[in-house]
Amino acid sequence: MPVLLAPERAPALGQLLEAADTVGLKPDILTLPAQVGDPRQVPIAGIGSLTSSGQSEISFLSNPRLQDQLPGCAAAAVILRPEDWEAYRARHAIAPAWIPVLCAQPYLLYALLAQWFDQHRLAGLPQGIHPSAIVDPDAVLADGVHVGPLTVIEAGARVGAGARIGAGCIIGAGCVIGPDSLLHARVTLYHGVRVGARAILHAGVVLGADGFGFAPDHRNPGMWAKIAQLGGVVLGDDVEVGANTTVDRGAIEDTILEDGVKLDNQIMIGHNCRIGAHTAMAGCVGVAGSTTMGKRCMIGGAAMIGGHLTFADDVHISGGTTVMSDVLEPGRYTSVFPLAEHTTWQRNAAVIGQLAQLRKRLRAAERQAAMRQPMQNSQDSR
Amino acid sequence: MPVLLAPERAPALGQLLEAADTVGLKPDILTLPAQVGDPRQVPIAGIGSLTSSGQSEISFLSNPRLQDQLPGCAAAAVILRPEDWEAYRARHAIAPAWIPVLCAQPYLLYALLAQWFDQHRLAGLPQGIHPSAIVDPDAVLADGVHVGPLTVIEAGARVGAGARIGAGCIIGAGCVIGPDSLLHARVTLYHGVRVGARAILHAGVVLGADGFGFAPDHRNPGMWAKIAQLGGVVLGDDVEVGANTTVDRGAIEDTILEDGVKLDNQIMIGHNCRIGAHTAMAGCVGVAGSTTMGKRCMIGGAAMIGGHLTFADDVHISGGTTVMSDVLEPGRYTSVFPLAEHTTWQRNAAVIGQLAQLRKRLRAAERQAAMRQPMQNSQDSR
Amino acid sequence: MPVLLAPERAPALGQLLEAADTVGLKPDILTLPAQVGDPRQVPIAGIGSLTSSGQSEISFLSNPRLQDQLPGCAAAAVILRPEDWEAYRARHAIAPAWIPVLCAQPYLLYALLAQWFDQHRLAGLPQGIHPSAIVDPDAVLADGVHVGPLTVIEAGARVGAGARIGAGCIIGAGCVIGPDSLLHARVTLYHGVRVGARAILHAGVVLGADGFGFAPDHRNPGMWAKIAQLGGVVLGDDVEVGANTTVDRGAIEDTILEDGVKLDNQIMIGHNCRIGAHTAMAGCVGVAGSTTMGKRCMIGGAAMIGGHLTFADDVHISGGTTVMSDVLEPGRYTSVFPLAEHTTWQRNAAVIGQLAQLRKRLRAAERQAAMRQPMQNSQDSR
Repeated sequence: MPVLLAPERAPALGQLLEAADTVGLKPDILTLPAQVGDPRQVPIAGIGSLTSSGQSEISFLSNPRLQDQLPGCAAAAVILRPEDWEAYRARHAIAPAWIPVLCAQPYLLYALLAQWFDQHRLAGLPQGIHPSAIVDPDAVLADGVHVGPLTVIEAGARVGAGARIGAGCIIGAGCVIGPDSLLHARVTLYHGVRVGARAILHAGVVLGADGFGFAPDHRNPGMWAKIAQLGGVVLGDDVEVGANTTVDRGAIEDTILEDGVKLDNQIMIGHNCRIGAHTAMAGCVGVAGSTTMGKRCMIGGAAMIGGHLTFADDVHISGGTTVMSDVLEPGRYTSVFPLAEHTTWQRNAAVIGQLAQLRKRLRAAERQAAMRQPMQNSQDSR
Repeated sequence: MPVLLAPERAPALGQLLEAADTVGLKPDILTLPAQVGDPRQVPIAGIGSLTSSGQSEISFLSNPRLQDQLPGCAAAAVILRPEDWEAYRARHAIAPAWIPVLCAQPYLLYALLAQWFDQHRLAGLPQGIHPSAIVDPDAVLADGVHVGPLTVIEAGARVGAGARIGAGCIIGAGCVIGPDSLLHARVTLYHGVRVGARAILHAGVVLGADGFGFAPDHRNPGMWAKIAQLGGVVLGDDVEVGANTTVDRGAIEDTILEDGVKLDNQIMIGHNCRIGAHTAMAGCVGVAGSTTMGKRCMIGGAAMIGGHLTFADDVHISGGTTVMSDVLEPGRYTSVFPLAEHTTWQRNAAVIGQLAQLRKRLRAAERQAAMRQPMQNSQDSR
Repeated sequence: MPVLLAPERAPALGQLLEAADTVGLKPDILTLPAQVGDPRQVPIAGIGSLTSSGQSEISFLSNPRLQDQLPGCAAAAVILRPEDWEAYRARHAIAPAWIPVLCAQPYLLYALLAQWFDQHRLAGLPQGIHPSAIVDPDAVLADGVHVGPLTVIEAGARVGAGARIGAGCIIGAGCVIGPDSLLHARVTLYHGVRVGARAILHAGVVLGADGFGFAPDHRNPGMWAKIAQLGGVVLGDDVEVGANTTVDRGAIEDTILEDGVKLDNQIMIGHNCRIGAHTAMAGCVGVAGSTTMGKRCMIGGAAMIGGHLTFADDVHISGGTTVMSDVLEPGRYTSVFPLAEHTTWQRNAAVIGQLAQLRKRLRAAERQAAMRQPMQNSQDSR
């Protein structure tokens, strides 16, 4: 499975480490005494885990607890931290069958190699405009822009150099897409949405649909008057948005995702939100309207954040947590009812409705004990 | 940002208030003593908040707590209630730089003006059928229907006068779309879905997919036999459905959204549900199958409503709340575990699994105290 | 409503029961003494509930609690268990107006008849490739494959015999779709996704988008390096996936849905998950990455399952439940805060933050009581 390239396209290990964007990581390929040939010349056709890799793949040890998998690993090379390599040598007299690649950040190096393989495993994506795409004459496409089949680009839209727009996308009037952005198939941008450089937008993403705003229509009691949503959606650079995620346009001002925000699938960002730089949200999160989130927040899956709230920087919200108030200090926050076997849950949940009363009863019991206390003492002193 | 129209297209204030559908609201433009010129002639190019508006925009005060923003407001005009204007005059000796527009319902008036600007800010949407649309000869389109590029309309579908269908929509066989409805890009209607007048359906909406129904297949234990979903989906008039929301078709009867229902994004309405008129649901709500909801209910974001339930009219469910039983009285209902810093949460959550036992222990302590009570009295009487 | 076929296309009851795939169910059509004509010849144009069926429909009693609806049922025939028919005869002197069809599994028989009607009520779906579809010359389509308008099939994709692909789908490079699968409109498969036989994929489904994986980029503190997702998505046979549900591709290995898995709408399956055969999930469920679920699990709506967890076979999770730990024993599990009227909820929720403290106070009260206990005894013995 993890073999990604045909043998004739597999790079040599040394070449791969240079080709990938490993600036600052300085991976060090060791030559073991018993080794035959130059380890830099070993061909690497893919990436695998310690247990699944075969003789043409590179693997990595990022979690020291998986050290026991090293002796049996069948990969051609393994990326690991110098201290983990020392620990391996201290525990094993025999040299491993794989080439050690030392690096202080194995997980990051793995990420960068995976990016390289991802770019090279597929036949190069087509360049140019597919003849079935419908591009308005008033749209402006920079050089090297790719537009897939059956994509619509409306008037006034501007697409930056090197951007790739997949099949079946709709780019609304006046949208701006930054250079080197990648829109997978079937992304929908309403009019006037602005996307920064190097964005990755996945299939089913909808940016710029109307925020949910209605005024009670006092002329027709019980009915709603729509509040037209006049703002836009603005994404900074290096933003990724997962499949079927939606970000609504603002009521008056814009809804904003700052640089480096990463959203997983099935997320909903309400109108007028501002999500701070490099904040990451796992799948199924909802953020109601007008909430401002700080930088580098991490929001666990299916967490639900209320509207008109303020989050500090570096707030971590556990998965499944509901937040109904500001979170002004960094830290981790949780609000999950603990799981239990159903009948146990029933027994304990039945007490929840009596908690305030139980507290009162406990207070009464304490008062009673306190009242008796002197009497008891007087007995003790008898 | 909130400037929406070029100067030459900006209406005069008096003209704007007449052009918008403000019947019954009777906005009153005041002429202040110090003012130069006719306030009705001031051009208004957009709408802004009290803090963001500039000299060509109109703003509004709907929340009296924002009154402190009035003196510094740079808008051309501000909509506010007569009593808020009186309060302003009582507190400030100097007339404001903006024109007061008095109206008993500033938020509703803002909504109506925003609608007007939304309709006028974009170049008129194209009329007619885009040549790339694939319209079955057996579909019936009324006069003035617009169909965007790459949209498919299947046999037997009927589209009412003035309806606009965006790019990349799929309208299944036999669907009915009411007059003046707006389908944004990439809406999918399965066969036989019926949509009323003036609907607004956002991108990614799917109406009429199969409800989730399976019978245990006793011939193949552990396996499921699909229950084909033979009902449909019916939307009343004035329904709005948010981006990527899904409403499933009924098993035998129809799934129904009554007049004026408003659904936000990422909502799931299960098969055979009936949602009462003017009920509104915020994003990420799920309603399981066969639940009947009353009129004018309000369901907070990410609330999850079980199946086969009945809700009265005017039920409000807080965001993040799970409902597993009928709610037969109007009112507000909640079921959210309170948020806490994670270690505090851990400490308190650990007690949840002991609640039934704690109640028992408290009862024992109370009984013991009660038993001692007479004895204590006898001691008192010593 | 439940009439599905025009009178001239309605099959006779006997014919219908033979045509539907009722192998092993052996339905038995009774002839009642008072009946005129052969009950097997009665035409059946549709299926309805006991209360909604008219004279040309068949109905069924699967829930014995609905027995009171039998006498007033206006259907042409009713499927029921032999024991329910005996109970009916014991309680009613007069024969019903409907023909009894005895079957040990009425709900399953209903499911199979509904399948038959669903296949026959629509004019036959078009065969062949719609001229507007864009099929790469290097894609391989078996005989009898139908491809709807404006669908894109990329290079190297293979589609099995009898598969139907709806309008506006995108089938990525190298995908495999098994025979007799049905893709409704607007399904998106990223490159290399493999779908088994007889799959049903609903509109808005996205299979194979990138899993959510980022490594902290130590060279740029606070920023994220994308982990390219090199694995795929593999679906077994007989899998159904609901509207707007997403299944992400694996980081290194594949994300897998085994045979017979049934997913409702708006579900999110994270990368590297393995969902066991015949497991069913209701709408809005989220499963974070690398979780392995056993066979025949049932996950209630909006349940949220954490990542890197293991579930046994036959685990049932209640709707709205959050799971943050392994579930290694079959059974039903729940974690829902009980619903209450809002002010009652507020009162009780306020105690949650004091639970650990309350437990401590209760212990103190118990210790105090225990300390007094001997003293009390000594008093008793006075």
